[in-house]
Amino acid sequence: MLNQAQRDRLDVILVSPRNPLNIGAAARAMANFGFAHLTVVAPYNPHWREAKSAVGAPELLENATSTDSLAAAVAACTFVIGTGTLTHRKAEQPVVPLPELGPLLERELARGGRAALVFGPEKHGLTRDDLALCHVLVEIPTDPLQPSMNLGQAVAVCLYELACRPASPIAQPAPQSAGKPAPSNDLERLAALIEDTMAAARYSPAAMQKANRHDLRLMLRRLSLSPHDVRRIFGLFRRVLWQIGRKGTAAQRSQGPPPDES
Amino acid sequence: MLNQAQRDRLDVILVSPRNPLNIGAAARAMANFGFAHLTVVAPYNPHWREAKSAVGAPELLENATSTDSLAAAVAACTFVIGTGTLTHRKAEQPVVPLPELGPLLERELARGGRAALVFGPEKHGLTRDDLALCHVLVEIPTDPLQPSMNLGQAVAVCLYELACRPASPIAQPAPQSAGKPAPSNDLERLAALIEDTMAAARYSPAAMQKANRHDLRLMLRRLSLSPHDVRRIFGLFRRVLWQIGRKGTAAQRSQGPPPDES
Repeated sequence: MLNQAQRDRLDVILVSPRNPLNIGAAARAMANFGFAHLTVVAPYNPHWREAKSAVGAPELLENATSTDSLAAAVAACTFVIGTGTLTHRKAEQPVVPLPELGPLLERELARGGRAALVFGPEKHGLTRDDLALCHVLVEIPTDPLQPSMNLGQAVAVCLYELACRPASPIAQPAPQSAGKPAPSNDLERLAALIEDTMAAARYSPAAMQKANRHDLRLMLRRLSLSPHDVRRIFGLFRRVLWQIGRKGTAAQRSQGPPPDES
Repeated sequence: MLNQAQRDRLDVILVSPRNPLNIGAAARAMANFGFAHLTVVAPYNPHWREAKSAVGAPELLENATSTDSLAAAVAACTFVIGTGTLTHRKAEQPVVPLPELGPLLERELARGGRAALVFGPEKHGLTRDDLALCHVLVEIPTDPLQPSMNLGQAVAVCLYELACRPASPIAQPAPQSAGKPAPSNDLERLAALIEDTMAAARYSPAAMQKANRHDLRLMLRRLSLSPHDVRRIFGLFRRVLWQIGRKGTAAQRSQGPPPDES
């Protein structure tokens, strides 16, 4: 059961919702369960305006933000939770049953930082690229014959679980050694730099680049890097990339080496 | 966590839903969480037909029944659970927080019989007369500033709780002595007979009759009567009523005494 301070550090994110009624329903469930921060990614603008101006819309809808990409929406988040059914795909991250999400999220928030709970579009859910930005996936244990939930109902069920369920007696305390994790945008900057390095080093054939990029993003999240870890690895890769560049064009060579950040 | 056999003994009942989308949403949540028995009380018929014929409507909607009254819908049920916010009224039955409903319902179903989970209309929820047919009220612990949930979301949250939450470690086993409870229609027949008796005995002034009738219904449910209890009390009141009638009109007198049922 998240307390109010913890709920204030959870963003609810809807990626490209199609139905304005679902945006309203998600916002209402947030108000019911004491969550305040809603972000909508790439909404269809007429529907977004319609949802915001609906009669009886909760106040938090007025304060909701919209972004162009999920990466921008989770930029400041240290722990990103994806939702969706796993009937037709294999999960690439740890999968947490919803009844076990509360204790896990409490542990993560105890390390500092901010969390996000991400819901995909009604029809097909989160894309593979969206999922690569998630640290874990949460699964609502629905009937295999009818696994797919209505978006507004899925939001309500998840927030009920986080806001109302008493703490599980088996919840473990946060490991003492784990510091504050790095925010998502740091991981994205690092991923982009490593990708450039992979390309410059001709690490993978062109056909494999997309898959490698995807796996790289998943791996960076699995590692639970601290901001300091990220700075150090970033510095290393900048230097490696510059060294590779030296062997490249004269233009690249004239830029000089980057400062050592480690 | 109710097993499938237990879920099959729970009716979900919507009283006078206004919005066909909410009927569809309730049915979808039922399919998601493995519940099959839906009853709609006094629906507005065009909306009821619209909900039933909606694209993608779960099969259980086709098999859903409708009744004219809540009393008819719960006639065969031995344990009736009302839902709704208690912000603006005082509960007259025991109130169970939703996270504690699962173990309680398991205990009740272990005694035999059938349960119902009843949701009121979107605008004002269950009426006082509807609530008098309920053994307990369940409360979803929502924010006091925004307590009222969307109907489809409330159904989803309740069914998630019942279908997916692991059994609470503090759940008590059913008391050994408690037998199968009497179904709701037996209690209603008994309440009607006792009311007739109260009226015949001029127990309460006319102004008080409605309140007494209401309290009587609540009390009969609080007592957890067995079918045998009900038969015995029914027999007693029939005899009492006949005796009162003897002092009444000649017409009443000529009917003779009822058989002793005890």
